[in-house]
Amino acid sequence: MPIIDSKTGKIKKDYTLEQLIKKAQEMRAYNMIAITAAGSGHTGGTLSIMDIAAALYLKYIKHDPDNPTWEDRDRVFWSVGHKAPALYIALAEAGYFPLEETVKLRKLWSGFEGHPNRLKLPGIELSAGSLGQGLGVAIGCALNAKLEKKGYRIYTILGDGELDEGSVWEAVMCAAHYQLDNLVAIVDRNRLQIDGPTEEIMCLEDLSAKWKAFGWHTLEIDGHDVPQILSSLEEAQKTKGKPTVIIAHTVKGKGVSYAENIVGYHGIAPKDGRSGKESLDQALKDIGDPQFTKEKVEYLLKIASDYQSKVDKKVEDSLPKFSRSYWWNTTPSMQVKMEPTRNGFGRAIEELGKDEKIVALGADITSSIRMDKFYASHPERKNRFFEIGIAEANMTLVASGLAKEGKIPFIGSYGVFITGRNWDQIRTTVCYNNYNVKIADAHAGISVGADGATHQALEDISNLYYLPNVHITVPCDSIETEKSTKAVTYIKGPAIIRYAREATPLVTTSDTPYQFGLANIIRYRKERENFLEAFETKLSTAYSSEGEDLTLIACGPMVAEAMRAAYILKEEYNLESRILNIHTLKPLDKKAILKAAEETGIIITCEEHQVGGFGNIIAGVIAKNKKYSTPLLLDMIGVEDRFGESGAPWELTKVFGLTAEHIAERAKELYEKKK
Amino acid sequence: MPIIDSKTGKIKKDYTLEQLIKKAQEMRAYNMIAITAAGSGHTGGTLSIMDIAAALYLKYIKHDPDNPTWEDRDRVFWSVGHKAPALYIALAEAGYFPLEETVKLRKLWSGFEGHPNRLKLPGIELSAGSLGQGLGVAIGCALNAKLEKKGYRIYTILGDGELDEGSVWEAVMCAAHYQLDNLVAIVDRNRLQIDGPTEEIMCLEDLSAKWKAFGWHTLEIDGHDVPQILSSLEEAQKTKGKPTVIIAHTVKGKGVSYAENIVGYHGIAPKDGRSGKESLDQALKDIGDPQFTKEKVEYLLKIASDYQSKVDKKVEDSLPKFSRSYWWNTTPSMQVKMEPTRNGFGRAIEELGKDEKIVALGADITSSIRMDKFYASHPERKNRFFEIGIAEANMTLVASGLAKEGKIPFIGSYGVFITGRNWDQIRTTVCYNNYNVKIADAHAGISVGADGATHQALEDISNLYYLPNVHITVPCDSIETEKSTKAVTYIKGPAIIRYAREATPLVTTSDTPYQFGLANIIRYRKERENFLEAFETKLSTAYSSEGEDLTLIACGPMVAEAMRAAYILKEEYNLESRILNIHTLKPLDKKAILKAAEETGIIITCEEHQVGGFGNIIAGVIAKNKKYSTPLLLDMIGVEDRFGESGAPWELTKVFGLTAEHIAERAKELYEKKK
Repeated sequence: MPIIDSKTGKIKKDYTLEQLIKKAQEMRAYNMIAITAAGSGHTGGTLSIMDIAAALYLKYIKHDPDNPTWEDRDRVFWSVGHKAPALYIALAEAGYFPLEETVKLRKLWSGFEGHPNRLKLPGIELSAGSLGQGLGVAIGCALNAKLEKKGYRIYTILGDGELDEGSVWEAVMCAAHYQLDNLVAIVDRNRLQIDGPTEEIMCLEDLSAKWKAFGWHTLEIDGHDVPQILSSLEEAQKTKGKPTVIIAHTVKGKGVSYAENIVGYHGIAPKDGRSGKESLDQALKDIGDPQFTKEKVEYLLKIASDYQSKVDKKVEDSLPKFSRSYWWNTTPSMQVKMEPTRNGFGRAIEELGKDEKIVALGADITSSIRMDKFYASHPERKNRFFEIGIAEANMTLVASGLAKEGKIPFIGSYGVFITGRNWDQIRTTVCYNNYNVKIADAHAGISVGADGATHQALEDISNLYYLPNVHITVPCDSIETEKSTKAVTYIKGPAIIRYAREATPLVTTSDTPYQFGLANIIRYRKERENFLEAFETKLSTAYSSEGEDLTLIACGPMVAEAMRAAYILKEEYNLESRILNIHTLKPLDKKAILKAAEETGIIITCEEHQVGGFGNIIAGVIAKNKKYSTPLLLDMIGVEDRFGESGAPWELTKVFGLTAEHIAERAKELYEKKK
Repeated sequence: MPIIDSKTGKIKKDYTLEQLIKKAQEMRAYNMIAITAAGSGHTGGTLSIMDIAAALYLKYIKHDPDNPTWEDRDRVFWSVGHKAPALYIALAEAGYFPLEETVKLRKLWSGFEGHPNRLKLPGIELSAGSLGQGLGVAIGCALNAKLEKKGYRIYTILGDGELDEGSVWEAVMCAAHYQLDNLVAIVDRNRLQIDGPTEEIMCLEDLSAKWKAFGWHTLEIDGHDVPQILSSLEEAQKTKGKPTVIIAHTVKGKGVSYAENIVGYHGIAPKDGRSGKESLDQALKDIGDPQFTKEKVEYLLKIASDYQSKVDKKVEDSLPKFSRSYWWNTTPSMQVKMEPTRNGFGRAIEELGKDEKIVALGADITSSIRMDKFYASHPERKNRFFEIGIAEANMTLVASGLAKEGKIPFIGSYGVFITGRNWDQIRTTVCYNNYNVKIADAHAGISVGADGATHQALEDISNLYYLPNVHITVPCDSIETEKSTKAVTYIKGPAIIRYAREATPLVTTSDTPYQFGLANIIRYRKERENFLEAFETKLSTAYSSEGEDLTLIACGPMVAEAMRAAYILKEEYNLESRILNIHTLKPLDKKAILKAAEETGIIITCEEHQVGGFGNIIAGVIAKNKKYSTPLLLDMIGVEDRFGESGAPWELTKVFGLTAEHIAERAKELYEKKK
């Protein structure tokens, strides 16, 4: 059933086979333009699923773009949130919104999030991005259809790498148990995941036998052959008493010469060695839809850049203003270098790898979090690296088994996934057993950027801090990440290293004092050519009060912002700030925190996290230990009880109120309130 | 290879087949005695695995009880922590500790925890209890053996119900990927789980086909036939290039007439309708080992009761002392009724079930958390109840799909599992999508009792509070649980109801004021015959300061303790306490908290949770909002950054410092400090 009018039941739009194939071509072109305009996105997987997306949304499923919540529509759940551009373009082609809007992909406030958000655009059935969740939701929907005797059908699109996730197999078992013949799972079997070919990362074959053994009707098709796609959907519809899986053999990057079957083309924008624009031209040439003239492409890219300009202005307007700009590297003085904190982890794991007790595990995102540095220049260590695939729970357990036998295993992934999908494994197996597992809580915070909310860890501190036996470090820059990683490696017991993805200011050097378990006290001294030289840092135990006006207590990349806030507060208001860099969150340097409260009377906590996850810990330490009559004002900077969104990392820190400007403004307010 | 001397390699102990079968009989008898003495425990599953346990520990695996950490020993990972008594008795028979010690099962400080703790007894390879985790750890161990070219073999024991868990299938896939032929999984296929037969709860068949499709060498045996057990272990050892699974067909409750193949015999002590002792006698008769004379059984039970008497004394000694006893129902006055808070949930779900929009889901613990009240007296609702098995992640997703379609689904389990194993599903699918899923966070806190640390949720508040869109209620007794459950049902969006297992004091009535989102203020007035009548309760908005000396801020069952503390403080020291019952944790009644801080100057927070999970939130609210010069002393009562243990619920609240006596003592200290 094609696109229909939900009121009259009449066909609104239909396509011949030839037209449908052309549409898929057009969709691929829009896809490449959107990802190019975004500067990031999932080229490979969107191209592999595009023919299926076209067949579903333009020919097969019953839906009405003018009535997106029509009760009798067929539902499609994209479990693979990262294929969002294909979903957006399919919806646009169907008529949910104008096609040219899709070039705003991954831009702030556009709604075209890096991973789909059902509350922001019509036609999206599920906000997704964390893998392995769509099939279960589809089951709930299918059960409801059975209960209410509704005839609509339910489809879910899965990636093949996603099948590493155990939650998928829970759902596979469950759908068969309930004999959900109104449910169809489509597996985009492109045989590549981020770290390599699926059969090398975590062998899936015989995949068809697995689904069969779990009680599903199983079909295998060429996922680029539109007639095969349509006839498999037909066959699924006729199959009674069990759900159907369509294993669609596809080519990752299909249709773009330099991306086809290339492992690297998972989460990056088109780039064939030349500039983005030239790579796009090549892609469009390969796709070969004649409507995409130079003018049309420029027109579309201009929609994106015009939109971005408006965003830029709005973002800038949202920043608190001072007598001059203090933003990073916008003036000749106070220059700072930037480096992703993850690079510090990479350097540490490379050096630590010399020790044969150190082993590393992969969760299909090994290079991005720099875990690959363990073996990249040391092929002889490859036998101490264990790829587990996208299976954080099992990764945590396997690491525990290795730790039990005397190894010091490192695991890691996006912070959300490596502390959230496996929380009970961390609690029961790692912490309760007190196993020596080290967890790289990478890509933490909203500064993850365009991937959006599902990929931005904002609750990991509160999730981990209250676990017994655990050690937590939240280093402020790449150099401190290196030090912190090394420090926790040889502390017996579980440890977490929380670090970020984006390039952040280098505010320490190898000579900066560092002692695990002690806060660093940082003081702004004087405007200098180099930002770093404008500050003095001491261990908390070596510091005596200078009678500062207030204290900023920060962890992670917020330390750099706190330092810049101290600079602003001094230059603008002649206020002196004590900064506490809490690189070690557990065990906490309670003495330093308490002294700061008693000596300065004003505290602002700064966290790239749901506000209070860190700040409430600080407030608790002070409240429990301070003297009865100590006067105190305290405020907290953090994400205000909301999910993140897609946008450039620095845009997000600005609009989420996490910059030095926000800290300085809030500190000034407290100072005035105190007076 | 039987039990050997790790130094000389010589056999220390070996058994003929006949002896081994006799040993299994003896082990069953000890098992029944231990569980009877404990008053709780897993009769069914320990009896089904006992022959396998005997064959492994007394005949097949290479180990040396005098050298439990011998590097070359074979390892056995019990993924099914609840079968702990079988493990303990097998270890005792092998010589790790005296057999008669095992009758201290589930008693405080005995080491014989309800679920095994490897740090408390020799011979335990893994602290377990949360299902689905043993195979992954065994994989880590097996990988290490391959890496280090060690010849030891690795065994893991799984339950069949446990195979519902997706983390098992992640591990099944992984072990085949790494071709771990040094690894053997043994599935105790007794075909019963808590909620019913496995094939009705979550169909596992064709189970052998599933493991085969996942790349394992698959054997099926009679799990009570010792020669078959031994020969299957032999065959596994000979199999190269892939791991082996032994699907052992067993009978749950094997050997005890009234327990065999009975669904109810999962987690309860022997009881055939008569007293525990009489039921035990019947069990021993059925088992038929002549050594268990009346005298021997009495001797063994006395070891347990003598041990318990010592524990009782030590526990009592640990309580702060006052001029007289204030303990629950120990005096003619201040009498209180007790009821498990879960009963209030049961009443609510039964009544709510009238609404056809309400649906309920099962995670194989439906009756214990009272979710069964949804349908127990209403068979016509059974079509709105969906059993998902032991698969919390999928349960959360299926509920989301139902919520998406307009239903109001309730899910629930032990709090650890239903907020921890599915944390990312709660975050990404429930909260980010803002689906109307209601979560019964049951069996929260250490008052869960003898099941021990793995089953005692102590980090769920901190795990959930920082999630956007969520509503959290932590009612104080069964009546308030009923009210809270109803209140959150019709609030749009995700909601958590945190409630307990054990009978706790009824400190409210149906007439007690209740408004979701507002704290209740409770004041002790005067000693009365009934505890309830000694107090007055008002909504926070209706309350004016009476110039109290201090404030106790509590949630959940700690409210009753705070009330009793107020009684102690008044009677012993003439101190007046304001009590805040924070039944609604999110959104929080910040005004009431702030007023209490400003008006009384002393705050004690009380939580049955890792200390600070709740207390730091309160401290944060006060610190952020109070005036600069408000004097304040604050302290927190809670679990001091440690895991729980097995013991009777009230024993645990005492030794973990969670009673009114502890609160009163701490309050008095702060009051003195203030002066």
